[in-house]
Amino acid sequence: MSQQSLSDLNAASKDGFVAALGNIFEHSPWIAEQVAASRPFAGVNQLFAAMKAVVERAAPELRLALIKAHPDLASKTQRAAGLTAESNAEQSGAGLDRLSEAEYAACERANNAYRSKFGFPYIVCIRRHTRDSVLRDFERRLPNDAETEAQRSIEEICRIAALRLDQLVVSDDRLKVHGRLSTHVLDNHGGKPAAGIAVELVELAALGESRVIARAITNDDGRTDQPLIGGRPLPIGRYELRFSVGTYYLERGVPTSDPPFLDEIPLRFAISDPEGHYHVPLLITPCSYSTYRGS
Amino acid sequence: MSQQSLSDLNAASKDGFVAALGNIFEHSPWIAEQVAASRPFAGVNQLFAAMKAVVERAAPELRLALIKAHPDLASKTQRAAGLTAESNAEQSGAGLDRLSEAEYAACERANNAYRSKFGFPYIVCIRRHTRDSVLRDFERRLPNDAETEAQRSIEEICRIAALRLDQLVVSDDRLKVHGRLSTHVLDNHGGKPAAGIAVELVELAALGESRVIARAITNDDGRTDQPLIGGRPLPIGRYELRFSVGTYYLERGVPTSDPPFLDEIPLRFAISDPEGHYHVPLLITPCSYSTYRGS
Amino acid sequence: MSQQSLSDLNAASKDGFVAALGNIFEHSPWIAEQVAASRPFAGVNQLFAAMKAVVERAAPELRLALIKAHPDLASKTQRAAGLTAESNAEQSGAGLDRLSEAEYAACERANNAYRSKFGFPYIVCIRRHTRDSVLRDFERRLPNDAETEAQRSIEEICRIAALRLDQLVVSDDRLKVHGRLSTHVLDNHGGKPAAGIAVELVELAALGESRVIARAITNDDGRTDQPLIGGRPLPIGRYELRFSVGTYYLERGVPTSDPPFLDEIPLRFAISDPEGHYHVPLLITPCSYSTYRGS
Amino acid sequence: MSQQSLSDLNAASKDGFVAALGNIFEHSPWIAEQVAASRPFAGVNQLFAAMKAVVERAAPELRLALIKAHPDLASKTQRAAGLTAESNAEQSGAGLDRLSEAEYAACERANNAYRSKFGFPYIVCIRRHTRDSVLRDFERRLPNDAETEAQRSIEEICRIAALRLDQLVVSDDRLKVHGRLSTHVLDNHGGKPAAGIAVELVELAALGESRVIARAITNDDGRTDQPLIGGRPLPIGRYELRFSVGTYYLERGVPTSDPPFLDEIPLRFAISDPEGHYHVPLLITPCSYSTYRGS
Repeated sequence: MSQQSLSDLNAASKDGFVAALGNIFEHSPWIAEQVAASRPFAGVNQLFAAMKAVVERAAPELRLALIKAHPDLASKTQRAAGLTAESNAEQSGAGLDRLSEAEYAACERANNAYRSKFGFPYIVCIRRHTRDSVLRDFERRLPNDAETEAQRSIEEICRIAALRLDQLVVSDDRLKVHGRLSTHVLDNHGGKPAAGIAVELVELAALGESRVIARAITNDDGRTDQPLIGGRPLPIGRYELRFSVGTYYLERGVPTSDPPFLDEIPLRFAISDPEGHYHVPLLITPCSYSTYRGS
Repeated sequence: MSQQSLSDLNAASKDGFVAALGNIFEHSPWIAEQVAASRPFAGVNQLFAAMKAVVERAAPELRLALIKAHPDLASKTQRAAGLTAESNAEQSGAGLDRLSEAEYAACERANNAYRSKFGFPYIVCIRRHTRDSVLRDFERRLPNDAETEAQRSIEEICRIAALRLDQLVVSDDRLKVHGRLSTHVLDNHGGKPAAGIAVELVELAALGESRVIARAITNDDGRTDQPLIGGRPLPIGRYELRFSVGTYYLERGVPTSDPPFLDEIPLRFAISDPEGHYHVPLLITPCSYSTYRGS
Repeated sequence: MSQQSLSDLNAASKDGFVAALGNIFEHSPWIAEQVAASRPFAGVNQLFAAMKAVVERAAPELRLALIKAHPDLASKTQRAAGLTAESNAEQSGAGLDRLSEAEYAACERANNAYRSKFGFPYIVCIRRHTRDSVLRDFERRLPNDAETEAQRSIEEICRIAALRLDQLVVSDDRLKVHGRLSTHVLDNHGGKPAAGIAVELVELAALGESRVIARAITNDDGRTDQPLIGGRPLPIGRYELRFSVGTYYLERGVPTSDPPFLDEIPLRFAISDPEGHYHVPLLITPCSYSTYRGS
Repeated sequence: MSQQSLSDLNAASKDGFVAALGNIFEHSPWIAEQVAASRPFAGVNQLFAAMKAVVERAAPELRLALIKAHPDLASKTQRAAGLTAESNAEQSGAGLDRLSEAEYAACERANNAYRSKFGFPYIVCIRRHTRDSVLRDFERRLPNDAETEAQRSIEEICRIAALRLDQLVVSDDRLKVHGRLSTHVLDNHGGKPAAGIAVELVELAALGESRVIARAITNDDGRTDQPLIGGRPLPIGRYELRFSVGTYYLERGVPTSDPPFLDEIPLRFAISDPEGHYHVPLLITPCSYSTYRGS
């Protein structure tokens, strides 16, 4: 869906406004309808707060209907029957459209177990998770009682809505829904930023394949030109940064042993805060290194 | 073969001395014969130096015969036909008796390529290498000329002999044929050695499976009770030490994020000096770590 | 002297232009005169390059006259007789107007020794030096021959001129005559930037008193709101940064020994590149710290 | 006093035993008398425990007499009148015989204040303190009540006694009355222990002069041949280790800036546990360093 400016939305007819924002909350245009009269909004944060307030003030049966309006995660049947464009993009982005048959079957069992216990689908803001952390989230939530899960579902729905709104609406202010992962390599042997180091970011998976999700070369300041992840939430999960340090020193003629004591350096860490800023620098010499969580 | 004391060897008959040391150099008792008259030896280093001098002074055709007395690496045919007990133990220790059919075939091709170029078998002191580094050694040596390779073979044969002598002969002095790999975990959050951390040492393999070759728990001094590798050469190759740091802080009630920023910390490094001392310590907090090659 | 915009200087009469820039090179308005016809200048770098080119192309006797137009460093007699406003400000900024009698006497002996050997005054761009490094510069240059020193003097005169021009002329571009010294404190115990740490920057002196030249408190990002030195050259010399780490952990209730293992942490380093960027961070826990030259 | 073996003391007459140990507790031979009949002692720890038990079981008036048998700290009058050889040596070792007139006067005021409040002298095991920490100890204890101070005095007296016993009696076991301060310099630029680095240990003083109390050169293992402090308690106080790192890299031809970014590196820390092991290593490159409290 193409982006719209907040000023256009403020100026639009009520129908136009609701048409534009009808799927911010899945299949639930009534939320947009209820805030239309509160226009103009000074910023997208104010707009989102208004929509969230509608959800929180809604009668329990309406909130339950909102929950039930959501599809199952990774359901082939529902995908075949048609999802909202938003749901479709979110699930594909998380790779849920490319599961093996066994994985689809596991998802289906999980969905069914959850649905048969609570009477509504398992909902999670998939863009804030890796596959491993979705599984862990599911296992932690299944033992809860229905009231807790209804509340948790609403929280996740609001997170989904905030991300949809962030993508759709152009405003002077931004919703705080993005994290950032960056690195920096400092060469303590040469006494300067380490330029030209190949860096890979790998998303680790307990189940299935780990996969490289970003590649970069450090610039003259020892940084990558772009954050390794930016402009979106950081999916909760385990990661490994890999730095080609052996090649770096070899190319600069620094004497090392053969094979070099340090070659590819892996830094393994977890992300727990999708909206946080993670700076994971590497300080190197041919025979030592350090890292720390910076900011 | 059971160990013998140097004083017993000094006191033995010439026949007894040659019988004991006849296979220190593979199928070549003439080397022991030539040093028998130089007894008594003050130590095992003096004994080894005498045997090595015999090899170095030997006529070229004798040296070639010594080289040719060695078996191929990982040859099923020769293993079936019978190796010296020493060769058999060395090749088994390096896992060369447990190769897949494809690996045996690859070895056979390599041996044949080498033998057809030089007219003698490819010899390497296998206890100083991992499988990866044997392959690299082979690839580096194959382009050499025959004279260079004859000399390299004698060097490797002397290394093999030194290790056999070290295992066989008990003396007040020791041959410098052993390396040592150790670690030490310091908890810079708690300000003390990190006790109770599970450590794994993995031998990394470019081809085939990486495998855990040592496991330990750090003691009250943050060290392992035994070196991770000791009492033998450190096989040239790439390794990874893995430390269960997340569990350590969890058990001590130190607040961390969920999942913890650091959980299992991998330190990846190479060993290039089989007789060296490698100390690879880890300094940790819940959000940072350092390592360096110590001594 | 009040600042002038480059566009005003471009539009000024020749006399106005020369009046404004006459003392950029000490008592030497002929340099400004020679570049006046080359106006308009696109930027201050172009203006400076033009003036410098005039100096470099000048006949040897003119260059010598330029050198001789400079005062002695820290001469009470010359100060009493009157310096240019620029020289006066530069010498005062370096504390050369507040020397003890013994120091004045030492300066006078040095000036006389230099002048009697070379026939012209010892010139150095004082804003790029501490007192210690001026002394070292003097001792290194005194053994030179006259040709070398004439060339060195011109270099220093151009540095002085660049700094005067930078202060006088407002332009879209800037001359690269400023350095920057900054710090950053990261708390690896708490896993976040260390806010609220008192920092002192001390200029160390081999002779005379060391003195505190900047004080700051780290902000929420663990940095100081302003660089410790910025907007001017970093004087070559030795420095110490002092961080009140003991108080920081005490106020946060982190258990430490009594007295705490670490209290005030001194980082001692030298600046050799007045136009460089020096970032000297501190990574701390209650029982460990690290620093490095960053960028 | 010359050392005696425990076996000789076990075999001695009662008079001989008491004569030897009569001043372990200042002017209080009755303590040695009471344990003489418990001989033989298996070790010096058992002997000390027996003597300490006598003190702890003694009637309050006897304990008070023991306290009052001690001299004032740094009293010129009492020194002139004669101290036990042990007291004299302890006070001299701590430099209390070399105070300025002002310092003597300050000590006298302190002693008098304490004595007039409690009726007995201020007692501290001076070998476990620097002058700064004695002052702090005094200031902390003066506000206490008499009962608390009587108990604290007995503790200090037992510490003094343990140190005297440790010096006097040779036994297979040792009393745990010694600490150790050591260092280790690792060159992370060269990838090996840093040999040949000059190290100074300075005892810092808030009042009066800081003073160098140990000097050493690092050996091939990057350590000092002897601990910086060993074989005695580590005086509670603040210290600075100074390492000549600039010279080290200069002599090895490592390119650095001029002046070098790092030259003399100071590590400032406090000792709080006189019987502890403090290992304060330094990891260096020409542009970075780290330290931590090791063990």
